[in-house]
Amino acid sequence: MHKPAITQTPIDTTLSNRWSGRAYDAAKGVTHAQVITLLEAARWAPSCFGDQPWRFVVWNKGSDATTWQQAFDCLVPGNQAWVKDAPLLLLICADTLFGHNQQANRWAQYDTGAAAENLCLQASSMGLMAHQMGGFDANKARSEFKIPEQYTLMAMVAVGYPADIATLEGETLARETAERVRKPLSELFFEATWGKSVKGLNE
Amino acid sequence: MHKPAITQTPIDTTLSNRWSGRAYDAAKGVTHAQVITLLEAARWAPSCFGDQPWRFVVWNKGSDATTWQQAFDCLVPGNQAWVKDAPLLLLICADTLFGHNQQANRWAQYDTGAAAENLCLQASSMGLMAHQMGGFDANKARSEFKIPEQYTLMAMVAVGYPADIATLEGETLARETAERVRKPLSELFFEATWGKSVKGLNE
Repeated sequence: MHKPAITQTPIDTTLSNRWSGRAYDAAKGVTHAQVITLLEAARWAPSCFGDQPWRFVVWNKGSDATTWQQAFDCLVPGNQAWVKDAPLLLLICADTLFGHNQQANRWAQYDTGAAAENLCLQASSMGLMAHQMGGFDANKARSEFKIPEQYTLMAMVAVGYPADIATLEGETLARETAERVRKPLSELFFEATWGKSVKGLNE
Repeated sequence: MHKPAITQTPIDTTLSNRWSGRAYDAAKGVTHAQVITLLEAARWAPSCFGDQPWRFVVWNKGSDATTWQQAFDCLVPGNQAWVKDAPLLLLICADTLFGHNQQANRWAQYDTGAAAENLCLQASSMGLMAHQMGGFDANKARSEFKIPEQYTLMAMVAVGYPADIATLEGETLARETAERVRKPLSELFFEATWGKSVKGLNE
């Protein structure tokens, strides 16, 4: 489904086309080559001192349904309800310590968010859809997958092909076709000092 | 300067073309319309509960050189050395509390990193170059620009047109033309469980 962001000025289509839908096509898998491409995109995000603090764990239902299920079982029920048809799951972690000196990296989560966004943008660019989730049991995932304490578990991501809109109905259809919304520019962005709103072109 | 990421499989060019150079063209400014486009791109990043925890302050040397200088003065000397020719500066902050319930938002920095990455990608897509910096005096910036305690100061960003490579020499030229590097896929990304490296296509 094509559901671009509604912007005052045109933005790059890789950015405007990305969105977090929930209706996946259970019949279409994701290949290992596609997984590599998604990870390559994440790999080239910028980071403080070039530390690349992001670490991802990937589960592909097509190649290993058992571990995919283990990952799926870490999601909260509200997410499981729609993630069930997504063939690829990822867990996004942030390394809390810099590699070069083992000191605290205060940009670890910030930089990891950029890498995850790159992955989502790449997915969208390939005709896939990626949806990040904070709703998962981080303690359970840490324990199941033996993730060291040094890494903070930030998000899980569902990836797959979007379902054909013609196959959807009721609330699922309404949710997938609802207009995308954001706060106005003037609430988020300031000019020269805090609280002085940037004036948009249409304001 | 065109300096795309070297990837095993082709990735979206909006992602591969973004890079953090340091040589800006002091003669070329950034218009307000371009600023709006950069902010629009940031605005459409995804966030937990759709909270959009990012807040940016923007300084455009072309329209207000005095406040641009105030922002510039918050950078560490090592960054000032090359940021001096960049016409646009931004400060990226993360709202530590969710808007809907004023509880701690553990994804504030992570989501803010995604919005900042969108801005950098949009810049690159417009022929501009954006370079994020952790090297600035956050206490000074908070005090100068009256940023409430609720917001964490994450990064400053320099934006402008890249300088013509033919005008560069010595270390500046070497730095701008050096090969871009990243850790191998196998160090950053795991399959099914922690520490089991994803196999790349070429490995």
